[in-house]
Amino acid sequence: MDEQRSTPGTWSGTGTTGGPQDPGAAAPDALLEELVGLAAYTELATFGLLASRSVDAVDLATRQTLAEAAAGSLERQGRLLGLVAADGRSAAAVMTPFAGAFADFDARTSPGSWSEGLLKGVVGHGVAQDLCRELAAGLSGAGSGAFARAYDEPAPGGWATTLLADAAAGDSVLASRLALWGRRVVGEALGLVQTVLGEHPRLARLAARARAAGTGDAAAAPGTTTEPGQDADVLAWLLQRLTAEHTRRMDRLGLAA
Amino acid sequence: MDEQRSTPGTWSGTGTTGGPQDPGAAAPDALLEELVGLAAYTELATFGLLASRSVDAVDLATRQTLAEAAAGSLERQGRLLGLVAADGRSAAAVMTPFAGAFADFDARTSPGSWSEGLLKGVVGHGVAQDLCRELAAGLSGAGSGAFARAYDEPAPGGWATTLLADAAAGDSVLASRLALWGRRVVGEALGLVQTVLGEHPRLARLAARARAAGTGDAAAAPGTTTEPGQDADVLAWLLQRLTAEHTRRMDRLGLAA
Repeated sequence: MDEQRSTPGTWSGTGTTGGPQDPGAAAPDALLEELVGLAAYTELATFGLLASRSVDAVDLATRQTLAEAAAGSLERQGRLLGLVAADGRSAAAVMTPFAGAFADFDARTSPGSWSEGLLKGVVGHGVAQDLCRELAAGLSGAGSGAFARAYDEPAPGGWATTLLADAAAGDSVLASRLALWGRRVVGEALGLVQTVLGEHPRLARLAARARAAGTGDAAAAPGTTTEPGQDADVLAWLLQRLTAEHTRRMDRLGLAA
Repeated sequence: MDEQRSTPGTWSGTGTTGGPQDPGAAAPDALLEELVGLAAYTELATFGLLASRSVDAVDLATRQTLAEAAAGSLERQGRLLGLVAADGRSAAAVMTPFAGAFADFDARTSPGSWSEGLLKGVVGHGVAQDLCRELAAGLSGAGSGAFARAYDEPAPGGWATTLLADAAAGDSVLASRLALWGRRVVGEALGLVQTVLGEHPRLARLAARARAAGTGDAAAAPGTTTEPGQDADVLAWLLQRLTAEHTRRMDRLGLAA
């Protein structure tokens, strides 16, 4: 079942760069639009996850809190889409390349309880958010700052984190179960990152640029069109960073990563 | 199964008015708070209905549209809650009297398809919205105007109506099924109106005042504390008005009421 995701070479968007048809060498606006598409689609997915846990919440206060968190995701999505709206790009057009991208992830992480469903939202959204922030470092010039401003408002998952941390703190059996579940979800999420970058060469290019910017590799830093580093190195670097952030997230939840 | 709902006399909040303990003779602020609680809880329920239909929408554009409509319901709820927030009343405190009020309605109207689920949202929210508007006519003074301003923004169900009307226009079998489903949902919704007024004497008092205001019965109009008209008359008047609005709504959908 892991075949599609783990096939070596699927994450090879930057391996054939250089030609005039290479999407990885697209104009900076195209890179921004691709990242906005991913981030906006992620917020829409998070809206759905949080709203679903609002609908079946155990009490009215939780229901209200999660509804507001879901609406917060959609507000953030609106700010992101605003970055490319001036180019006449509709929400649907920008997100369409990612439609259905999470279907496999969803099927593999069907939650067994309300808490698991909420943790899936927190972990899944957390990884996606960290990914988008890392990739944004590969944008050049105005796009990078604009994306950061649209994205860096308080994350809507904050309340959900508080709800889960409180629940876990009061129930060690639940905490153990959630820790196990969190490891499963993050494993699938990191696999999905690999798949998404494999299917979207522009995002893979952003990852390579981001790494170059972080490591001082001027030849591949944002603003250049030079060939960045090797795919495998970039992927390893990215997954290491996403894993570290996930560990911090689980710490905040009081759960073993 | 209809026993609780249809028992004569459950809707008798105004039948014993006059004493110092009578909740129907509460201060105008208490009447406003009760109506805000009902309207805010309704918007939260509508948020859930629309968000759920966003999650399983057939295409990305529909998913986005319904997510935005759901968020619109929550915005409207925020404006309503703002009307009583100055009194230090939290969202949960104001809505708590209505927690679970729709559980029976939900159990009786479990949709058999995505379209039925969406129509349930449009009809259920429509009836609730019409009810709140009618009851608001029973508020006196500043409360009435403030409620109308918070409530009279474009209803978030507009897009859902367009989606359903388009679907029904292109499929006569679906249109027939939805028309039948709409009659079932509105029947349950009108039964729920009776139950809610029976359980919330302040709302029943608002209904009596609203009718008096509409028919020129000065003795029971807003701003007085005189005994309003008979329960049964008021209920018949209210249901007639809600039914008429429902017929117009189904016309807009292109469905037989």
